[in-house]
Amino acid sequence: MATNTTVQARTDAPSVTHILASFVATHPTKGWDDSVEHEALRTFMNWLGCAIGAANHESVAAALAAINTLEPTAQAAVLGRSERVDIASAAMLNGISSHTFDFDDTHLKTIIHPAGPVASAVLALAEKIGSSGREIIDALVLGIDVSCRVGNMVYPEHYDRGWHITGSTGTLGAAAACARLLKLDTAQTTMALGIAASQPVGLREQFGTMTKPLHPGAAARAGMMSALLAQQGFTASAKAIEAPRGFAQVLSTKQDWNEITDELGERFEISFNTYKPFACGIVIHPSIDGVIRLRNQHQLQPDDIARVELKVHGLVLELTGKLTPQTGLEGKFSIYHSCAAGLLFGSAGETEYADGIVNRPDVVALREKITATIDNSIHEAASDVTIICHDGRQLHERVEHAIGSLENPMSDEQLNAKFDGLVNPVIGSEKGEALKALCWHLAAQPNVSELIGRTCP
Amino acid sequence: MATNTTVQARTDAPSVTHILASFVATHPTKGWDDSVEHEALRTFMNWLGCAIGAANHESVAAALAAINTLEPTAQAAVLGRSERVDIASAAMLNGISSHTFDFDDTHLKTIIHPAGPVASAVLALAEKIGSSGREIIDALVLGIDVSCRVGNMVYPEHYDRGWHITGSTGTLGAAAACARLLKLDTAQTTMALGIAASQPVGLREQFGTMTKPLHPGAAARAGMMSALLAQQGFTASAKAIEAPRGFAQVLSTKQDWNEITDELGERFEISFNTYKPFACGIVIHPSIDGVIRLRNQHQLQPDDIARVELKVHGLVLELTGKLTPQTGLEGKFSIYHSCAAGLLFGSAGETEYADGIVNRPDVVALREKITATIDNSIHEAASDVTIICHDGRQLHERVEHAIGSLENPMSDEQLNAKFDGLVNPVIGSEKGEALKALCWHLAAQPNVSELIGRTCP
Repeated sequence: MATNTTVQARTDAPSVTHILASFVATHPTKGWDDSVEHEALRTFMNWLGCAIGAANHESVAAALAAINTLEPTAQAAVLGRSERVDIASAAMLNGISSHTFDFDDTHLKTIIHPAGPVASAVLALAEKIGSSGREIIDALVLGIDVSCRVGNMVYPEHYDRGWHITGSTGTLGAAAACARLLKLDTAQTTMALGIAASQPVGLREQFGTMTKPLHPGAAARAGMMSALLAQQGFTASAKAIEAPRGFAQVLSTKQDWNEITDELGERFEISFNTYKPFACGIVIHPSIDGVIRLRNQHQLQPDDIARVELKVHGLVLELTGKLTPQTGLEGKFSIYHSCAAGLLFGSAGETEYADGIVNRPDVVALREKITATIDNSIHEAASDVTIICHDGRQLHERVEHAIGSLENPMSDEQLNAKFDGLVNPVIGSEKGEALKALCWHLAAQPNVSELIGRTCP
Repeated sequence: MATNTTVQARTDAPSVTHILASFVATHPTKGWDDSVEHEALRTFMNWLGCAIGAANHESVAAALAAINTLEPTAQAAVLGRSERVDIASAAMLNGISSHTFDFDDTHLKTIIHPAGPVASAVLALAEKIGSSGREIIDALVLGIDVSCRVGNMVYPEHYDRGWHITGSTGTLGAAAACARLLKLDTAQTTMALGIAASQPVGLREQFGTMTKPLHPGAAARAGMMSALLAQQGFTASAKAIEAPRGFAQVLSTKQDWNEITDELGERFEISFNTYKPFACGIVIHPSIDGVIRLRNQHQLQPDDIARVELKVHGLVLELTGKLTPQTGLEGKFSIYHSCAAGLLFGSAGETEYADGIVNRPDVVALREKITATIDNSIHEAASDVTIICHDGRQLHERVEHAIGSLENPMSDEQLNAKFDGLVNPVIGSEKGEALKALCWHLAAQPNVSELIGRTCP
């Protein structure tokens, strides 16, 4: 029995739960322009690559072992592995793997990684109910619009308070996407969002542990189940997002309701999705980008290089200033290792953060030639790079917008190469090539059976 | 990548995650006195009765239909039904049914309904791994201690903010209980609590919908999975409850760490558990108790009664002042119907809140003889009852502590009668009697197979 505690202030919110549900249930298929459609394919392919790439990580193995206690029925693929599990468990496992390398997509305005919760739920459900590629893309665009708009509404206070916003908004996005895939009507979709609103996942305290990637996984699972419950007539508050004791007001002190409604159905948040070119914290990206630009432009060999001088914002060194990393994970927090890898290999993907690479003598030798100094006049998303060669050349590059930023997005070719680097070591290049082609032509697939078949090693 | 937002203030918290984990993993079996042990049996039986009683409710049917989409393996019982599902789904379904009638146990200090999340996870897991009755009781006592101590730590701010505290703390309680049942060590149990901390369930906005009972169900499920994940080596923050971006500081502005540590292992929160004698809001209980006392003491018949005058705190009428309820659910918010039922039947269980009873002419006639006036000098947990008979008698009863309160707990006989009223209509009185006996002798059961067999209609 509730006691009569004081209701919080805002009872005048617009009916955003219903508004979002109506949008998801009734928006026309491919109701957006070609650039949005293309971004959806890029988002899907990047997510799939990340999930397959981490398929054999110990976090996925541990989660799968726990799920096997439930003796799941083989309904859907665990991406990049031979095992099959029930659709809700597949959503969870693929959500975990897709975020394990911290290499997935980023909606920069909110720091949401939107595909993890949404695509993981969508693909697993689609496999079971026989959805077409067209329906999958529709569900992905609409689901991501829901989670990122909810994120816009409560960011940054919600994130600052300590919520891992990918998981907390992801449950809503996954519920919306699955509701769309199940063809729920507006009333049922309202219930799906309502059920999902009670199940936010994710505290930022978990960063650095396996529970961080569990957040999108658990959100994918809970969102899918919310839609399946709503399909069966399970009820929830129709104002679960906006009510005084609903999601937005319980989990944040900021609620900008306009972020839900402004240009709804005209502006799509997936348009603002970005993809990491490098498998490390985003503040190192401009420096890696800068050294690779100079390396390629001047065809530099390691022996050419006398020293490398980086100038960066103080935050960059605070987060990633590790001088002598011993493991791959530590390497991700070392601007020195990251730039050495970029100079030596021309890339800084997951491969370049293996323990063996971090400790390889030629990598260490190059790393020790790199210095970084703080210059707070440089934006934290920028870098100033100077390479001094033994022959006396001073090569300089100022990176204002690193590759992978909204202003300088990865090209499709670069995304393809990233996909290859993640996927081919797990399932082989032949399957990887076929899978890539299927991703780019997802809209034409009558169902996902061919695509799913290619994800298995 | 996390941005460098300001960390919240309190970094000096004691290591409560580890402290609770160590307690759960190492506390000796039956390491408490007989009164605690007896309360555990009462808690278990009351929970089981509530779950079986609501087994055929539409909320359970809808949730089961959704779960059947996953084609679950038959590992554990859905209480009061013939279906069997995987253990995590069983935890969820039994958590839903046990809270559906709002008739389950209450830890009054926090308004937590502790058994729903904890017992639902424990019994389902116990069925699979063959735990003894002794192990089940240990897990129940320790799990409830964790959820209620966490509740004490953050109540009331956490609840006032809008969290349904049963679900938000329940995930931790269920994780602790399952960790105990799985015999996890302190390090693993710390991880189980850490994983669970990222999955709080439940917004108060859902009150009045099926999602309210979903909260303990989803908490039971998430808690069980947290323990299973930890068993497989899945990692989380070892400070997930107390860290600046952990559970207590993200979900509440109040953190009384002493509530975790004070008399830990000496005082057990299950000692303060209470059970509802009447299937309605707790503020009506003193009035129902009063009319039943007078009815029984004076062997009153409906025709004897000219009128009934209640004096109650204003809050009571605010919450339950519905004059002319039309449905059973509305009857639960009517002090008039509730007292009429008490006078006529001597009880106000789920049966007396059927639609047919609420609209029965003799019930309505009696209801119309009842008036209630506000007297704010009377405590909201008390009532002043006067019955004026046609023969001129004025019968008076002042109820300071209603039956079911901590000061005036239901007797074992009364709990037995409540169990009968809930269970016998679903599984029959023969099985109900056997089940009751097994509950009282739970500690002696080598496993739960006999008990589970009796829960099936």
